[in-house]
Amino acid sequence: MLAEIKGLNEECGVFGIWGHSNAAQMTYYGLHSLQHRGQEGAGIVVTDGERLKGTKGHGLVNEVFDGEKLNDLTGTGAIGHVRYTTAGGGGFENIQPLLFHSQTGSLALAHNGNLVNASQLRRQLESQGSIFQTTSDTEVLAHLIRKSGFTSMKDKVKYALPMLKGAYAFLVMTETELMVALDPNGMRPLSLARLGDAYVIASETCAFDLIGAEYLRDVEPGELVVINQEGLHSERFATPTNQAMCSMEYIYFSRPDSDINGINVHSARKRLGKQLAKETNIEADVVTGVPDSSISAAIGFAEESGIPYEMGLIKNRYVGRTFIQPTQEMREQGVKMKLSPVRKVVEGKRVIMVDDSIVRGTTSKRIVKLLKEAGAKEVHVCISSPPIKHPCFYGIDTSTQEELISAFHSPEELCEIIGADSLTFLSEEGLLKAIGRESTDSNCGQCLACFSGKYPTEIYPAENDQSKTVKS
Amino acid sequence: MLAEIKGLNEECGVFGIWGHSNAAQMTYYGLHSLQHRGQEGAGIVVTDGERLKGTKGHGLVNEVFDGEKLNDLTGTGAIGHVRYTTAGGGGFENIQPLLFHSQTGSLALAHNGNLVNASQLRRQLESQGSIFQTTSDTEVLAHLIRKSGFTSMKDKVKYALPMLKGAYAFLVMTETELMVALDPNGMRPLSLARLGDAYVIASETCAFDLIGAEYLRDVEPGELVVINQEGLHSERFATPTNQAMCSMEYIYFSRPDSDINGINVHSARKRLGKQLAKETNIEADVVTGVPDSSISAAIGFAEESGIPYEMGLIKNRYVGRTFIQPTQEMREQGVKMKLSPVRKVVEGKRVIMVDDSIVRGTTSKRIVKLLKEAGAKEVHVCISSPPIKHPCFYGIDTSTQEELISAFHSPEELCEIIGADSLTFLSEEGLLKAIGRESTDSNCGQCLACFSGKYPTEIYPAENDQSKTVKS
Amino acid sequence: MLAEIKGLNEECGVFGIWGHSNAAQMTYYGLHSLQHRGQEGAGIVVTDGERLKGTKGHGLVNEVFDGEKLNDLTGTGAIGHVRYTTAGGGGFENIQPLLFHSQTGSLALAHNGNLVNASQLRRQLESQGSIFQTTSDTEVLAHLIRKSGFTSMKDKVKYALPMLKGAYAFLVMTETELMVALDPNGMRPLSLARLGDAYVIASETCAFDLIGAEYLRDVEPGELVVINQEGLHSERFATPTNQAMCSMEYIYFSRPDSDINGINVHSARKRLGKQLAKETNIEADVVTGVPDSSISAAIGFAEESGIPYEMGLIKNRYVGRTFIQPTQEMREQGVKMKLSPVRKVVEGKRVIMVDDSIVRGTTSKRIVKLLKEAGAKEVHVCISSPPIKHPCFYGIDTSTQEELISAFHSPEELCEIIGADSLTFLSEEGLLKAIGRESTDSNCGQCLACFSGKYPTEIYPAENDQSKTVKS
Amino acid sequence: MLAEIKGLNEECGVFGIWGHSNAAQMTYYGLHSLQHRGQEGAGIVVTDGERLKGTKGHGLVNEVFDGEKLNDLTGTGAIGHVRYTTAGGGGFENIQPLLFHSQTGSLALAHNGNLVNASQLRRQLESQGSIFQTTSDTEVLAHLIRKSGFTSMKDKVKYALPMLKGAYAFLVMTETELMVALDPNGMRPLSLARLGDAYVIASETCAFDLIGAEYLRDVEPGELVVINQEGLHSERFATPTNQAMCSMEYIYFSRPDSDINGINVHSARKRLGKQLAKETNIEADVVTGVPDSSISAAIGFAEESGIPYEMGLIKNRYVGRTFIQPTQEMREQGVKMKLSPVRKVVEGKRVIMVDDSIVRGTTSKRIVKLLKEAGAKEVHVCISSPPIKHPCFYGIDTSTQEELISAFHSPEELCEIIGADSLTFLSEEGLLKAIGRESTDSNCGQCLACFSGKYPTEIYPAENDQSKTVKS
Repeated sequence: MLAEIKGLNEECGVFGIWGHSNAAQMTYYGLHSLQHRGQEGAGIVVTDGERLKGTKGHGLVNEVFDGEKLNDLTGTGAIGHVRYTTAGGGGFENIQPLLFHSQTGSLALAHNGNLVNASQLRRQLESQGSIFQTTSDTEVLAHLIRKSGFTSMKDKVKYALPMLKGAYAFLVMTETELMVALDPNGMRPLSLARLGDAYVIASETCAFDLIGAEYLRDVEPGELVVINQEGLHSERFATPTNQAMCSMEYIYFSRPDSDINGINVHSARKRLGKQLAKETNIEADVVTGVPDSSISAAIGFAEESGIPYEMGLIKNRYVGRTFIQPTQEMREQGVKMKLSPVRKVVEGKRVIMVDDSIVRGTTSKRIVKLLKEAGAKEVHVCISSPPIKHPCFYGIDTSTQEELISAFHSPEELCEIIGADSLTFLSEEGLLKAIGRESTDSNCGQCLACFSGKYPTEIYPAENDQSKTVKS
Repeated sequence: MLAEIKGLNEECGVFGIWGHSNAAQMTYYGLHSLQHRGQEGAGIVVTDGERLKGTKGHGLVNEVFDGEKLNDLTGTGAIGHVRYTTAGGGGFENIQPLLFHSQTGSLALAHNGNLVNASQLRRQLESQGSIFQTTSDTEVLAHLIRKSGFTSMKDKVKYALPMLKGAYAFLVMTETELMVALDPNGMRPLSLARLGDAYVIASETCAFDLIGAEYLRDVEPGELVVINQEGLHSERFATPTNQAMCSMEYIYFSRPDSDINGINVHSARKRLGKQLAKETNIEADVVTGVPDSSISAAIGFAEESGIPYEMGLIKNRYVGRTFIQPTQEMREQGVKMKLSPVRKVVEGKRVIMVDDSIVRGTTSKRIVKLLKEAGAKEVHVCISSPPIKHPCFYGIDTSTQEELISAFHSPEELCEIIGADSLTFLSEEGLLKAIGRESTDSNCGQCLACFSGKYPTEIYPAENDQSKTVKS
Repeated sequence: MLAEIKGLNEECGVFGIWGHSNAAQMTYYGLHSLQHRGQEGAGIVVTDGERLKGTKGHGLVNEVFDGEKLNDLTGTGAIGHVRYTTAGGGGFENIQPLLFHSQTGSLALAHNGNLVNASQLRRQLESQGSIFQTTSDTEVLAHLIRKSGFTSMKDKVKYALPMLKGAYAFLVMTETELMVALDPNGMRPLSLARLGDAYVIASETCAFDLIGAEYLRDVEPGELVVINQEGLHSERFATPTNQAMCSMEYIYFSRPDSDINGINVHSARKRLGKQLAKETNIEADVVTGVPDSSISAAIGFAEESGIPYEMGLIKNRYVGRTFIQPTQEMREQGVKMKLSPVRKVVEGKRVIMVDDSIVRGTTSKRIVKLLKEAGAKEVHVCISSPPIKHPCFYGIDTSTQEELISAFHSPEELCEIIGADSLTFLSEEGLLKAIGRESTDSNCGQCLACFSGKYPTEIYPAENDQSKTVKS
Repeated sequence: MLAEIKGLNEECGVFGIWGHSNAAQMTYYGLHSLQHRGQEGAGIVVTDGERLKGTKGHGLVNEVFDGEKLNDLTGTGAIGHVRYTTAGGGGFENIQPLLFHSQTGSLALAHNGNLVNASQLRRQLESQGSIFQTTSDTEVLAHLIRKSGFTSMKDKVKYALPMLKGAYAFLVMTETELMVALDPNGMRPLSLARLGDAYVIASETCAFDLIGAEYLRDVEPGELVVINQEGLHSERFATPTNQAMCSMEYIYFSRPDSDINGINVHSARKRLGKQLAKETNIEADVVTGVPDSSISAAIGFAEESGIPYEMGLIKNRYVGRTFIQPTQEMREQGVKMKLSPVRKVVEGKRVIMVDDSIVRGTTSKRIVKLLKEAGAKEVHVCISSPPIKHPCFYGIDTSTQEELISAFHSPEELCEIIGADSLTFLSEEGLLKAIGRESTDSNCGQCLACFSGKYPTEIYPAENDQSKTVKS
């Protein structure tokens, strides 16, 4: 059944602030620290108490905004969004926050996650005459809110949210209120902080550190936080169910200096590396990590195993979007971008190459080849996560099952495919232990669906024109 | 006397190729791998045997060139240049390679290094009616060549070079020849490789690895290499003197995967860290390095000392040229770009912070403050090079002596200024030993002028309008 | 009552083509010939029978489109739009054609004219949960169509149109049909032509001449034309009422080479000038016209009066959007852009200056001053239209009544205000006669509302948040 | 002999001001009014008494400059230049003013005209070691000045100018002086004015009108004007010879509101049309002019002949540089840019089409075809200048002799080639009479070389690599 379901999954980052005289500037810096969560586009909407005003665009935060644009965004409340680079691009209108005006008031939405019933809801709304502006699943919430008969915006939001299924961290802003909601499984990170008198919300705590805000607590699964001139008010739109925080946030997605559910990401990664070293027993001369996301794990592995850590691979910092890719002919001649092996480090050595995950296997294969061509005697690939066998419907771009090489190949077969001398995956138990969770039962606090196929929510088969819907 | 001498010193990177059907494309990739040597501007000039044609511009290699521009540069010989970001910018005309047309033939020049008598030579040439197009010291060589009475280009170059003083790695290209020259002290790295039938020259060997070229040898001090349809021909325009390779190339400037004089840079840096650990004796909980250039040294330090290496500082990858800097008011509120401390890693810890050098002290002071604000109990700064007390006149941007904080302050005073709990510099002996050289006498093969004040060449006092001259 | 009504009125141009292999390219050229009708923005939507695809942007047609963008717009049906420059700019989303996607099909709209009940309709639709994407009055029709319960698109459109009040020439395109509708008063020009097997629709016939299409007939008031694979089919959504073609189309708005209702615009203007000469009796040495729109009338005036026509004013062709306007101080020093008097032509002369209309009087005052400073002995202003005393609600930017100087000042007062030696307006009878219409009764075929205050449709007082609605 | 001589001839415009607090802004407006003389590029150099500073770029004046750039150009003296669009483009470095720095002072040059011995002088200078920065003939003067042994800049210029042959109006500016020179034949217009205490120099008097400057006099042939803090000082670097003002300046190049040698251009053109009417005797229904340059002549023709003037052709104002040209296939379908016939004006009529000149004949042929396709019964082409049979070496782009259709075809043959019903050229005598000169002897004050082949200066055969030299 799962194989039927196609979709463009994305990860994103959200940031919000309420009660700060430089709301737009703070959001700019906040989004900047969340930039790793999305490089396709960025946007900020502010409110000055009377109207909403926004700017958004394709590219990095510092490409979308300049001083003039930021200065135009005067207001004391703001929400912002960074969007993941998708293969096929994506229209300007899909860049968030989405902003809707009407003669009775405006509404801005920013969303991290992925709704699994967006297509069903949209079809239903269109049959009633609604016109959608975007192909983003986020817009569904706007229509549900606007069609709601309730009077207060809080009630409109509170009764619209239960119609959504999937993973979501939503920021909803009107002229006079900022509302924050997290899905009942708490699948995406979302934290709350204070900056003087202002409240700050962000996908990752690294955004708080940057602007000097003080971490208060994580938003709870099923919680609706309303912030307005009367302060912060919390209530539940859903009773708590089993928390299922996305494991990939720890494994590779979040920034090492962020804490998720109170656990530091770099430290978790280093423990993943240590645990991986414990679970294997390879004789080697050097340990090296695939930059940037696997360096912490590689250092942990080296520390645990006693094998020295070396910089065996260099990531090129200057390969931008406009970089001219080498032709096939040139690639054969040796032109290789992005990652360079350090010949003198690996030449004649037995190398343990630590990476965070294997999705399609093509990258791993390429890196093993690079290291061998640079003279490595043996290359032992050690992966600081279990095999990914199942697609993610909640916002991580692990694509369709057909593309997941571990769905169809055993580690032994995969080892041969990527040309390594050995291939080791971390166990699920090891993963939970290293992160700092107790057990693998359904109550472990982590979503392990991409490894185990046990999804925390129901999944809907996508319909024929699903391709028209882009998830945020 | 030295304090009188002002100038804008710069480091750059050069690349050349002769006898390749995709000369411009190869140069594009070569320059890309030398991008860390200069981000201000880039240029490529090609020859198709009949005429020279070039493109250049401000910015990164992939900003200056696109597919169309590269395809226009048809030819089998090419030279390219990347230029360091200078504070005050620098005119378009100064971007290299410089290209000079005349009714009897054209000439392209690319230069890494700095001439110490450029101003004197220029003044002399102008008094004879020469009109300069740039404020670059590189142009002096073009005028010397053009005024030379010799018939062959090789002789024109050979007899012009001895009039230059300082550090230089020159690529000179005409319609039919590529000439390569290194100053008699060999102060800048310059290596030679083969790619099929083509010859390749580059400032660093990492450029060879990228395009699959095979390293042949380093260009020798005082050597003039002439490459044309008859192959490669080498002769000397100067007898060899004491080699004086710039030590900063090992300490922070070159890429870790390059080999300079046969010594791998990452390995040298790791040895610098180990040697530094040997020379000091600090009790601490974690070792952390200032990314990116000090990571190798920090890992070496950790390995030698047994203190665990941790990622205590994160470098932000997305801070581009157009990034809006926080105002003073925001900085006070905590907005800090570029470098973030990892709170959970340093909180309550005694931290050894390894950095490659201290120039003005402001950066070190800022990082110590960051770490302390993030909760570090103690911060011990360990520098993997000796104190920089003297300005560089050969192309490294260590500015004027007034700005060199070690010129006027002892390590103890400096420790207090930067707010560290201790400050350790590597010794000159330790530096040479770690790099792999024998002794500190004048024959050690390294230039130590910025530490010792012993310059390998004579230095000329700059004249009043020196400010008009930009060094390449 | 009229003074209560505020709004941003605009004139625009529309073009459509059905059944042509280069539909987008033809639309590009068509829009180009309608460029004078709107320079703020331009857009094209095409259909290839299966889906709609569009491109739009701020600026001129040749700024919005390049070869690549046009080539992407493959299809055999297309509609396009050029938009008038409004004072306060206008959001990207308001640029037309508007394009709406849904899971059951797409819809594109292009509109020339102005709806007088847009605000009322929008308010009603929003109260039912509709979310508007733009602040354009055009979007109202899209929502009316989508909410319609009819099955066929033709019926949806046919029964939605009667809810609209005002002036409109609408192009509505789906994947498989192009529909064309003109308001029951026929207030905007809209003509039909053939190009081989294709049908072409345009605001002005000059677009047909450019692409070599053959004029068929004008679209009739209240007519709905449906073009699809079965050919062209016409029906009426309203019975014909009195035609009320906008008189400004003849006076200054349309291109001289266009024919409106079978009357050539240049010839009509020349007749306006002749009629004006008949209605006045001024002794003068030269006749000059304010370029470009008044040249035809000035030549007619000269021909009729026997006073020689001279080029007394030169329009500067290079004053673009980015031109730096002179400061007040510079203006006093004489810096005058856009229009230059030809000193030798007017010096010491009695000059008749023919202009097409006076709205605020500021331009006329400025030109009289220019001519006098250049030495004109007398300046007699002759206007080839009657005084504009009433605002236009149908799309011509004659703004609010407060800004219409003739609403509050007699010609004698106005003559003094602008500093002229005499001021003559054309009579309403003269206007109709010169255009070629019979009488001034309500059946004359022309809208004279801005002169007479007799509006052909009812007018609605604008509501409080009217300012949020931009008319197309 | 002439046929051997190839070259790229160009017309340009120069402007200078000295002693004005807003020198750059005034130059911006001045260049703007000279924009018709060159649209390829523009530049301004200012002096603040201590240093020269400039900005230049490709495109129109208002594209090259914005408020920020102009504000950077602080100074009380300025020179500016606009450059003609050449077929093959032209390098950035050739855009003027050229600016040369040296350690002893800077020099800026702006030039209108064309040197006929530039190639010879350049070759000579290069053989002595000079390196040229541009391919512009203007740079030759800079080298001649710099190589001069004289002490004062005035003497350097005064003794360098006599080495130049051809047509030139030069502005030379140093930190402290502005020098103005006109060739001994006075072939290019150059006038002097006063603006308060400041002196102003411009290619055309329309620039004075724009900024409110008061015309003083024309610069005399062979005159060198030096303006500095001591005021304006005039001397001669050559004795006056026969003045030979370019006739094309009157016929089509200059702006109608300019006066050249005291003669207004529009009035001269109208007289050319009247004279043309006197010299011919065609029965026709309407007279129409090819916009913009032939309108004055057409009106004169109509006035003299009594045949009514009509707007038979419309010039499209929006065809910019980036406009997508119709493909051959589209042209056949009727897509015609730039010029549209007014069908209702010419249909069934005998049309006299007045144009200013015929160079290759292709444009005339195209317009005749347009008019006939629009229904003109007869098209009589009347040209307000004599046949152009000889190339111009002084800066007007009448190209090589091979391209001049009148060099090889009689008017009768040409009439057939362009498909007209008759073709009339103005006589040389008529031309001089209409302009206001006495006779056709060598002392008539006008250059008639392109009609008669009698060149006012010697001409040098171009050498082999002439193609490398672009004239200004």
